[in-house]
Amino acid sequence: MFSEIIKNVKSNTPLVHNITNYVTVNDCANILLACGGSPIMADDIDEVEEITSICNALVINIGTLNSRTVESMLKAGKRANELNIPVILDPVGAGASKLRTDTAFRLLKEVKFAVVRGNMSEIKTVGRDSTKGTRGVDASVDDTITEENIDETVKYINSLSERLSAVVAVTGAIDIVADGTIAYVIRNGHPFMSKISGTGCMLSSIIGAFCGVNKDNFSSATAAAVCTMGLCGELAYEKMKKNDDGTSSLKCYLIDFMSKIDAEMLKEGAKFEIR
Amino acid sequence: MFSEIIKNVKSNTPLVHNITNYVTVNDCANILLACGGSPIMADDIDEVEEITSICNALVINIGTLNSRTVESMLKAGKRANELNIPVILDPVGAGASKLRTDTAFRLLKEVKFAVVRGNMSEIKTVGRDSTKGTRGVDASVDDTITEENIDETVKYINSLSERLSAVVAVTGAIDIVADGTIAYVIRNGHPFMSKISGTGCMLSSIIGAFCGVNKDNFSSATAAAVCTMGLCGELAYEKMKKNDDGTSSLKCYLIDFMSKIDAEMLKEGAKFEIR
Amino acid sequence: MFSEIIKNVKSNTPLVHNITNYVTVNDCANILLACGGSPIMADDIDEVEEITSICNALVINIGTLNSRTVESMLKAGKRANELNIPVILDPVGAGASKLRTDTAFRLLKEVKFAVVRGNMSEIKTVGRDSTKGTRGVDASVDDTITEENIDETVKYINSLSERLSAVVAVTGAIDIVADGTIAYVIRNGHPFMSKISGTGCMLSSIIGAFCGVNKDNFSSATAAAVCTMGLCGELAYEKMKKNDDGTSSLKCYLIDFMSKIDAEMLKEGAKFEIR
Repeated sequence: MFSEIIKNVKSNTPLVHNITNYVTVNDCANILLACGGSPIMADDIDEVEEITSICNALVINIGTLNSRTVESMLKAGKRANELNIPVILDPVGAGASKLRTDTAFRLLKEVKFAVVRGNMSEIKTVGRDSTKGTRGVDASVDDTITEENIDETVKYINSLSERLSAVVAVTGAIDIVADGTIAYVIRNGHPFMSKISGTGCMLSSIIGAFCGVNKDNFSSATAAAVCTMGLCGELAYEKMKKNDDGTSSLKCYLIDFMSKIDAEMLKEGAKFEIR
Repeated sequence: MFSEIIKNVKSNTPLVHNITNYVTVNDCANILLACGGSPIMADDIDEVEEITSICNALVINIGTLNSRTVESMLKAGKRANELNIPVILDPVGAGASKLRTDTAFRLLKEVKFAVVRGNMSEIKTVGRDSTKGTRGVDASVDDTITEENIDETVKYINSLSERLSAVVAVTGAIDIVADGTIAYVIRNGHPFMSKISGTGCMLSSIIGAFCGVNKDNFSSATAAAVCTMGLCGELAYEKMKKNDDGTSSLKCYLIDFMSKIDAEMLKEGAKFEIR
Repeated sequence: MFSEIIKNVKSNTPLVHNITNYVTVNDCANILLACGGSPIMADDIDEVEEITSICNALVINIGTLNSRTVESMLKAGKRANELNIPVILDPVGAGASKLRTDTAFRLLKEVKFAVVRGNMSEIKTVGRDSTKGTRGVDASVDDTITEENIDETVKYINSLSERLSAVVAVTGAIDIVADGTIAYVIRNGHPFMSKISGTGCMLSSIIGAFCGVNKDNFSSATAAAVCTMGLCGELAYEKMKKNDDGTSSLKCYLIDFMSKIDAEMLKEGAKFEIR
């Protein structure tokens, strides 16, 4: 299944519009090219609708949001909805400031997202009942996904997915991608990936590419993207260790492997189960 | 001829003011240092004139333009014109949105450029008759430069160069640099360079460095920069293939070779003809 | 002494809020992770206070300042002062434009900095008597620190440190860190580091991490950070030379070594004297 999905990416060059932060934007551009896609970055309110309209997907990342770009995100998101172009939300830092939390809620209210991806803390923030300003009952799940709390977490993600009408992807030591019906529990990746900036942002952009040309099944496309990214991280970590390199080499190898991975490698290396 | 030009760059440390996009700006800074120049990035309207005035060249790149930075571009460009400092235009994405196309036209109307560099699609957009809002007759040339349409394309680029009173550089599988009188047809580079973000932006910054200290001949300086960049890309590709690396390593090697290339290597590796 | 300091960084994961330029921001994020810290970038005026309040340090870098972000810098700086969180100033380009010079003065007037780090030219600009708009008498010191003028420069840096009530760090061929009482003269680093963009910015962010978890002694923490960065640069240069690589590899190796350096390596490689 993932084979077909990654082949679609490699053969269709999905064009992905990113309204994203200025910290990791270069990495997002390069990993999109590496995976077989093509990046466009544009955030002025006078052009975001036009740019979105020529793309296969829109990725909204609130990493270094400001009052100007938030309006552009909303405008682009609404246009994407009109044109049935999948929109991905990466609520970077939701929970760390009122501005980020409020912006995430506003985006979720005014734009329909195909996928919301974050770490557990961000996803739990997004999962709160915004009208009550408090944590929803569901949010009693732990911040870290472990073998012990997988079932409970899957249940939470599934229910959140239904409430948001979006695939929800939580990434961490174990990753979960769920759409309310099916849940992928993914064990690719390596903890050392957290020592490089932007792995989350890059993954969100890659999810945009995967969903953009696999519009019939966003949950599978997202799970395939998560496995692909994690597998590239594992291969990069092995190479780094073998060469006794450090974290900057790890980032370089991660993108290198993204430019080399294919359906065969993904089939062999993907580690997931369906619950 | 190119030997003298690259030696001037290496020995004079051209200072280049870049008003550019936040996607590839770090690569532009590093490749400018690698080639022997020095980068300054500044985009606030209250300082761009001062910064430009201490530089050897100004590079305007509309990659992630916004209403604030467009005004800074215009102001810096006009100041550069007053001081006889060469200005380079990289009309990134012209044609992809009305804002970009209009901004490119506005810049070309209000600022005199030494060089305009883009891919064929961007250059054709810039070459339209802006007052008519339609493609000019010339724009019937193909979007891809091939061995078959070189003469026709050279003719088009020469005529556009005369109309804009600027050297025009079109980069792609084959590159053309023309000033209305002389046209360089350049065959350096490797198709795989398109798999890394920012090769066009980096080239525009390099052209700024080359023109900034070779003010007597912008077309030769631009052609030398295009050959140098392409040659570094070839060398980087060979190293990447030999080591079985991927696209992030390719970018690293590209900048590495820019920091190592000299007049001798350029003389040996430059592949161009004059038409 | 430096052993304890670097161990504190490795074991406490200092969270560092950076309001910085978009040129080198990715390098700052990655080198913070490499050294054992954690980066947050946020510049909207509606969230900077909240973000600063959860951090161990705030780094203000005026590299690509604009009217919007200057206000955010001031607001974040004042909040950090209230909470006793150390603030680092990197006055990038002070002296190159009136906006930068005035902004540096305004920041120094309204915010209390723990450390001010720059090259000699930037530090001398900051050291002028802003009310007179001219160079202060002290500013007759040379722009380059040499073996011949060390004593004179140390005296100047010490007196400036007292006037600013901040540790002052000047980096160049020889580095000086002084707080009015103690002065570290540091000889780590390699001249070739100037061929990569952002070594100064990265160092300022690292100083933030070191000071954030060593709040009892900012001058030692800053000196330890300067030695660590310089030593990583030396190791990176050796590896680059050995492999016959170029400047982009040098940057990669620099961050690699920052992710590998420990108290033992620092103790063995730090080259400093106290004057």
